[in-house]
Amino acid sequence: MHLEQINSPEQLKKVPARELPHLAEEIRQFLLESLSVTGGHLGSNLGVVELTLALHYLFDSPKDKFLWDVGHQAYVHKILTGRQKDFPTLRQYKGLCGFPKRDESEHDCWETGHSSTSLSAAMGMAAARDIQGEKYRVVPIIGDGALTGGMALEALNHIGNEQRNIMVILNDNEMSISPNVGALHNYLGKLRTHRHYNKMKEEVEVLLKRIPSVGGAFAHAAERIKDSLKYLVVSGVLFEHLGFTYLGPVNGHHLDELIECLRQADRTKGPVLVHVVTQKGKGYLPAETHKEKLHGVSKGYKLEVSKGVKKAGDGPVKYPKVFGNTLIRIAQEDSRLVGVTPAMLSGSGMNEFAHRFPDRCFDVGIAEQHAATFAAGLATQGLKPVLAIYSTFLQRAYDQVIHDIARQKLDVLLAVDRAGFVGEDGETHHGVYDIPYLRCIPNMVIMMPKDENEFQQMLYTGHKYAGPIAVRFPRGTGIGVEMDAELKEMPIGKGEVLREGRDVALFAFGPMVSPALEAADRLAREGIRARVINARFAKPLDYELLDQLIEDQMPVVTIEEGAVIGGLGSGVLEYFAEQEATGIQVKTMGVPDYFVEHGSPDEQKNEVGLTAENIAGAARTMVPRQRRRA
Amino acid sequence: MHLEQINSPEQLKKVPARELPHLAEEIRQFLLESLSVTGGHLGSNLGVVELTLALHYLFDSPKDKFLWDVGHQAYVHKILTGRQKDFPTLRQYKGLCGFPKRDESEHDCWETGHSSTSLSAAMGMAAARDIQGEKYRVVPIIGDGALTGGMALEALNHIGNEQRNIMVILNDNEMSISPNVGALHNYLGKLRTHRHYNKMKEEVEVLLKRIPSVGGAFAHAAERIKDSLKYLVVSGVLFEHLGFTYLGPVNGHHLDELIECLRQADRTKGPVLVHVVTQKGKGYLPAETHKEKLHGVSKGYKLEVSKGVKKAGDGPVKYPKVFGNTLIRIAQEDSRLVGVTPAMLSGSGMNEFAHRFPDRCFDVGIAEQHAATFAAGLATQGLKPVLAIYSTFLQRAYDQVIHDIARQKLDVLLAVDRAGFVGEDGETHHGVYDIPYLRCIPNMVIMMPKDENEFQQMLYTGHKYAGPIAVRFPRGTGIGVEMDAELKEMPIGKGEVLREGRDVALFAFGPMVSPALEAADRLAREGIRARVINARFAKPLDYELLDQLIEDQMPVVTIEEGAVIGGLGSGVLEYFAEQEATGIQVKTMGVPDYFVEHGSPDEQKNEVGLTAENIAGAARTMVPRQRRRA
Repeated sequence: MHLEQINSPEQLKKVPARELPHLAEEIRQFLLESLSVTGGHLGSNLGVVELTLALHYLFDSPKDKFLWDVGHQAYVHKILTGRQKDFPTLRQYKGLCGFPKRDESEHDCWETGHSSTSLSAAMGMAAARDIQGEKYRVVPIIGDGALTGGMALEALNHIGNEQRNIMVILNDNEMSISPNVGALHNYLGKLRTHRHYNKMKEEVEVLLKRIPSVGGAFAHAAERIKDSLKYLVVSGVLFEHLGFTYLGPVNGHHLDELIECLRQADRTKGPVLVHVVTQKGKGYLPAETHKEKLHGVSKGYKLEVSKGVKKAGDGPVKYPKVFGNTLIRIAQEDSRLVGVTPAMLSGSGMNEFAHRFPDRCFDVGIAEQHAATFAAGLATQGLKPVLAIYSTFLQRAYDQVIHDIARQKLDVLLAVDRAGFVGEDGETHHGVYDIPYLRCIPNMVIMMPKDENEFQQMLYTGHKYAGPIAVRFPRGTGIGVEMDAELKEMPIGKGEVLREGRDVALFAFGPMVSPALEAADRLAREGIRARVINARFAKPLDYELLDQLIEDQMPVVTIEEGAVIGGLGSGVLEYFAEQEATGIQVKTMGVPDYFVEHGSPDEQKNEVGLTAENIAGAARTMVPRQRRRA
Repeated sequence: MHLEQINSPEQLKKVPARELPHLAEEIRQFLLESLSVTGGHLGSNLGVVELTLALHYLFDSPKDKFLWDVGHQAYVHKILTGRQKDFPTLRQYKGLCGFPKRDESEHDCWETGHSSTSLSAAMGMAAARDIQGEKYRVVPIIGDGALTGGMALEALNHIGNEQRNIMVILNDNEMSISPNVGALHNYLGKLRTHRHYNKMKEEVEVLLKRIPSVGGAFAHAAERIKDSLKYLVVSGVLFEHLGFTYLGPVNGHHLDELIECLRQADRTKGPVLVHVVTQKGKGYLPAETHKEKLHGVSKGYKLEVSKGVKKAGDGPVKYPKVFGNTLIRIAQEDSRLVGVTPAMLSGSGMNEFAHRFPDRCFDVGIAEQHAATFAAGLATQGLKPVLAIYSTFLQRAYDQVIHDIARQKLDVLLAVDRAGFVGEDGETHHGVYDIPYLRCIPNMVIMMPKDENEFQQMLYTGHKYAGPIAVRFPRGTGIGVEMDAELKEMPIGKGEVLREGRDVALFAFGPMVSPALEAADRLAREGIRARVINARFAKPLDYELLDQLIEDQMPVVTIEEGAVIGGLGSGVLEYFAEQEATGIQVKTMGVPDYFVEHGSPDEQKNEVGLTAENIAGAARTMVPRQRRRA
């Protein structure tokens, strides 16, 4: 039977077991060909081909529940549940979602995107099942990297205690975006391949006691952190003590072994952990050797050579590049600067910084809460930490930002990456809530640059500032402006007027300044003179510029790539209300009150109307016809 | 030397070691007498008398850093660092803070209130120390309950890996607000008192394997969860594997043992964990036996008898009581209702519900992130979970509310307790950010009742509603209204006009309705007719009522006990802007943009102007003199 004949798990079950390895190869070939056109998460999906086949072969989705932690490794699951034909639209606007999606299939029982949620959700499903007196399997599939997230550990604790039937699959792919380093890791790696691994536990312990700390090039990098917990994980010690039956490790690419082990797990009562060792990029040589680059691939890579990472020099510079360079520049002149990130070292552009300042760079792994409070601790002693974190993941450290950073008024610079729409990753990853959720916190300053040059100046400004301050910046590249040679501090709470006009004001934040300028051009052609303001600060707002708008009695359009509820526009409304400036008309443009699905950032902006055309349209309606020049 | 002669750690160091037990007794007597007048956290402080003495006797604060996790056990530390004289003002307005406070003393190096932060902060301080080439001790003191919090586990992982010198004191007080139950716990308790505990580890393991699950009355209560992790903790297994040197357990009330063990820890390189077993309420019989009641005591309890818990029937009913009763009522008629709480079973009034529905009540311990996603998991299978959580702690589960609950539009009812000012616990505990941080999330509905009767109806409404919905409610008692016999659904997004008027509208949320009514009375006496609206919903707002205000061109005062930035008032401004209702004056009253310190809730409301007098004052200025009736 061929892959295209399999449109459901029922059909898969009809395949003789001996033919499964062949099917696995067909799936690999399909992934390679399909993703070479659409892009997507190649490596992680190549790693779980056999595991996904085995799960659907043995168990009964949708009655049984498969929960894919993080979720970007669910492509094989999608292929086997009738969605192979949709792969040409993968991660595209109105197309197949890159993550599990409940609307898309009854086989997707739990939506993910952020890591470490699957165990908690599985515990919920298992409890519900038992309360309702039903019978089905609950099978979360979680990677080793996601286990360092605090909520995963909270969930393990709960699951171990309640002793309900849950089959946790630990997908130990020996890396979580960044490669592991360190002597212990290598040693464990060798052990892993040995079938009688369990017997060697004691030997590992002896070894462990001889190595006081795990060396390696990145002394403070996430890999070391993961390794110590990892030891508890791979040895089974953690799970056994928490009340799990521990099975494995099993070779995740050997279907017979895998199926045998899963059958054994299925006969086990209570929570069981199946430790499956997989290889990211399995079966595709470049993906195996360049795993990090192939974590996510852009469209159009060739099968032979990875083009997952764009070379420097192709057009405008990327924001992470500016971030990394500026960190290094500041760090060279100020020894107080330290970098902290929860597993976003590479994504945030901090690799080079980590190389140059290994003692001042901390990648703490997937551990957002700890990262934020750790940064606060550093700041209490006079250091100036920069916390590099994506907007969507900063949500995980919200209490720590309020309670530990802002309340104690500590010098932590939040470098809020991927602010605004993120494109193909879609609704789980958009960074569109940080303006409202940070704006309501006392002591907080919030900036966003209109371009990459302003970005470096804002980073410098944030570094110089005493107190908590956030620079949010978008995913992707700048707009190609020249970079100032010198870093200069910008005044806090000061915007700039980029274009004069008296008919209507366009009050824009960050990358929305560009379409606002374009809108002003359009309006000018109609005789409407728009004042274009680069807000720069969402908090504090530039009250002088706003007072001027009150004095001039000008209608205002606010434009931001963030939730319109409670955002910068609301800040303007609040200020006008406070000033009793009741006569002024304000239109707030931003991300409306629903979750915007995957697509390109341009499609997303277009969908919600954050375009030059719409800005011009909104402004136009606010200008009385008689004020327009002929 | 007597206690009153000791105003600093330097003076303490002059006391001969043999006199320390006597000093401990003096401290106990002082705490008992002082807290009988002011109230405060008695039990936890009685438990750490010897520990605090030993730390200040041996080590050198403020050079050495003591980080008190949660922080309500820092009274002895405050006494020994020159603040004994301030205890008559403890937890009072402008008085001594009940938690460590950096402004208050150089000995308070880290502010707390929420649990599980100390390890992350300690890691930050230790890293800063090493980067700066300095030498001092970093000593976080953390309770066993706080260790289940995910961020504490994230931090242990990081600390273990970096191998910096950090001395973690595990204050194992055998309970964390609620008493532990279960066979294993009792067995471990016996072992704990034994000096040669370490030798018995193997025996425990054997026992553990014989007990498949720990029994007890509350099958799903937090105690069982804590116990499994607790086993890893008390046995030292967790810490040893994470790279700590594990010392103990040591009797936390035996000063010689304690001092000897801390000296040993001080000679140890790298991270060391000192396991100290203490007894909450040590030295005061009622506090020892009624620990839970004495966790926090109200003012005026007598030394002999605890009056920590108010009896039923004294005045208006407490909100937690209404919550608990209503849960039971709904649960009786709908088997889909399940209760979830992260260690707030008793505080939220769920004890009786847990007794009645042990299989449908889940106290997951201090694990907010897990609690929220666990609730989401329950909801995916058709159950209707109620997540009982304080507003301030919901901050810890913010990402889970966005990513898991709201995005998947699951039927989770957030029962957001302690919304608004919380009084004596002060700035770390106020529930004043939830309106802005929830309002910006798509699919979210936010209600707040004006009184305890409306509260039960809103709980019922939230239960009936399909999708994520929050009922926020205040700390303390209702206002004494009659309770409806029947539970009835309220229409979503509908407020009510409580008093007609055409001069000005008072648009009030929750308990702010009462002072708004009082303000309307005051205004009426001046001839100003105020319309008083009970908003009921912060999202969606009652657009019909707001349209009416637009039609009537009435000035509006919005009043909420929450951050004024991005709150319900901003929602009204946003709607008026959207409707192009430019002529209407709006004043938004709420909690201003700073952290409000401890005191009584009335003092706090008074400080920020959330009073009937101020509401009337704000409204008065908005009514043109000519509109007022003579």
